[in-house]
Amino acid sequence: MIMKIAQIAPLYEAVPPKLYGGTERVVAHLCDALVDLGHEVTLFSSAEAETKAVLVPVRDQAIRLDPAPLKSDLAAHLFMLAEVRRRAAEFDVLHFHVDMIHFPMFESLAGRTLTTLHGRLDLKDLAGVYARWPQYPLISISDDQRRYLPDANWAATVHHGMPAELYRFSPKGEGYLAFLGRISPEKRPDRAIAIAKRLGRRLKIAAKVDAADRRYFHDEIEPLLNDPLIEFVGEIGDEAKSDFLGGADALLFPIDWPEPFGLVMIEAMGCGTPVVAWRCGSTREVIEPGLTGFLVESDAEADRAVEQAVRLDRAAIRRRFEHRFSASSMGRRYVDCYRRLSAMQEAAPRIANDLADAQEPSRIKSA
Amino acid sequence: MIMKIAQIAPLYEAVPPKLYGGTERVVAHLCDALVDLGHEVTLFSSAEAETKAVLVPVRDQAIRLDPAPLKSDLAAHLFMLAEVRRRAAEFDVLHFHVDMIHFPMFESLAGRTLTTLHGRLDLKDLAGVYARWPQYPLISISDDQRRYLPDANWAATVHHGMPAELYRFSPKGEGYLAFLGRISPEKRPDRAIAIAKRLGRRLKIAAKVDAADRRYFHDEIEPLLNDPLIEFVGEIGDEAKSDFLGGADALLFPIDWPEPFGLVMIEAMGCGTPVVAWRCGSTREVIEPGLTGFLVESDAEADRAVEQAVRLDRAAIRRRFEHRFSASSMGRRYVDCYRRLSAMQEAAPRIANDLADAQEPSRIKSA
Repeated sequence: MIMKIAQIAPLYEAVPPKLYGGTERVVAHLCDALVDLGHEVTLFSSAEAETKAVLVPVRDQAIRLDPAPLKSDLAAHLFMLAEVRRRAAEFDVLHFHVDMIHFPMFESLAGRTLTTLHGRLDLKDLAGVYARWPQYPLISISDDQRRYLPDANWAATVHHGMPAELYRFSPKGEGYLAFLGRISPEKRPDRAIAIAKRLGRRLKIAAKVDAADRRYFHDEIEPLLNDPLIEFVGEIGDEAKSDFLGGADALLFPIDWPEPFGLVMIEAMGCGTPVVAWRCGSTREVIEPGLTGFLVESDAEADRAVEQAVRLDRAAIRRRFEHRFSASSMGRRYVDCYRRLSAMQEAAPRIANDLADAQEPSRIKSA
Repeated sequence: MIMKIAQIAPLYEAVPPKLYGGTERVVAHLCDALVDLGHEVTLFSSAEAETKAVLVPVRDQAIRLDPAPLKSDLAAHLFMLAEVRRRAAEFDVLHFHVDMIHFPMFESLAGRTLTTLHGRLDLKDLAGVYARWPQYPLISISDDQRRYLPDANWAATVHHGMPAELYRFSPKGEGYLAFLGRISPEKRPDRAIAIAKRLGRRLKIAAKVDAADRRYFHDEIEPLLNDPLIEFVGEIGDEAKSDFLGGADALLFPIDWPEPFGLVMIEAMGCGTPVVAWRCGSTREVIEPGLTGFLVESDAEADRAVEQAVRLDRAAIRRRFEHRFSASSMGRRYVDCYRRLSAMQEAAPRIANDLADAQEPSRIKSA
């Protein structure tokens, strides 16, 4: 059965982003995957989106790189949501990727919505909001992400996927370890550098440095770069990723924060490159130890794991990527969610509405 | 008739703010003034508020100075609004000071709400939102503020007021000009310095320097401070304002942006100090030329205006402040607005609702 699906993207970055940006990248590939699966997909986003879906441009360009000096991200998103609501009757499912900002506007339609939470959930003010609007079915991008909001209305975990054709399989590494991402304390580039130096292996670091992290980069990381083993190559775009990741003997992912997913792990796997990750956040769910990489909890374990990882079967890693983390695999999993949602709505629309009302005993009704 | 009034404050600063912060300061004094006028006032805000109103604390402390590293201002405000909505039936009027974030949540109650817009309105994304939610009656804090949204649903302009007892009348200046505010390009502290130097008069600058403006301060302003006429005293709190402003022969307000109100002008008047302001934003509505100060458009005009301003009748300036810009004067003007709102609701609740519906032809209804 063909479904009519609305995808509602954040307006901060282009879909997909010109440079950095995880959420809009995932939404872009989800749209294309759903179209490839035969569904009718409508994307609400900023106007420069590149998509196989029908595009509803609600802002002339994405907010972050818009040179206009005075802009309001709240207003931009409310405007988009008003447009989504105006057209809501056209869709079987409304799939939101904008955190909780739509909660006040779609209460009567909550049973036809899915909301994927893309960010970390250990923020001070979140629990109250998810408790106040319990009627929205939520998708986590890893099971671990749920840890800080265990009582929220979780419907499923759907891991991210990336298009298989975006990553070129590389049967053999070229003799270096790789670190790819942002330079920031919680990403622990210092750990990656220390591993390389202890093992006497080369390390290439491709990373952007945000304004907020410039001091950390200057004070903590730059002094460590003065070593023939370590090469800092700066920020790289999508087109350079296959070369950078595919050339690596292993990707180091030594994070020290509850990263809810970590796209770079599956991007490495897409090239056949094994991943050595700290056991933290989502890494347990993404990496299959001994098959696609290793999970470690100490420097000593990391050193041993790297020496084992570089000998893993790279073709097998790519196959696991295609099976578990391709965009079409993600698309199929979301279609399952949409179908369950529709089935629940058709089976018991009355019950669903009654339940929603019961959860909000003091809700104000129209006069 | 005693009215039951809910005041909904932003959660960024304490009510009133510990340091800088205009909106929360106005809300604090409005609450107290309404209580003094005999009304039942309930304040929704962060917990450290100091108020004569009944306080509903919706966050343990204001967001900006909360040391918690991970917080969500959107979630904090949505949580507050859910609490306001739960209790909305208790109030005759809901008075919002949170820009447009409440629009999606109070559509069926819009006729019982007032929304004071405290910020500049020349932002790229605003017009679309005010067009989408035309049913909310809006209060401007100056007529000039409306210029960028002329077609919005303006109900009235209510100028800000400050408590008369907060400012000590000073019958005579002490021989210096004053500049009070933020150091930033659009506040034009450079103009104030140039005036003082041309006239050979002393200038005291009391101003905070935000992180965003540190380079401007260092590059453009600091080199100008090396002059015996110019004294930079840093940021000052409420307790020092009467001395600082009351001691001035005149306040310089040489702004170069459409400031929607400009509290410091009325704070100076509260001390009996005349104001020389550039004709820009709200200044035309606040200053009565020849009585409380002068409006200028060039350096030459400013020089002449300062020499005239220092000879104005300071007691008359204080009287104009008490009459036009005291907190109780602001309170009375808002009560007028609340009464008109209630009268309209009682006269024609059906019509009002029909109108609201007609303005939103495609609004989604509950099943």
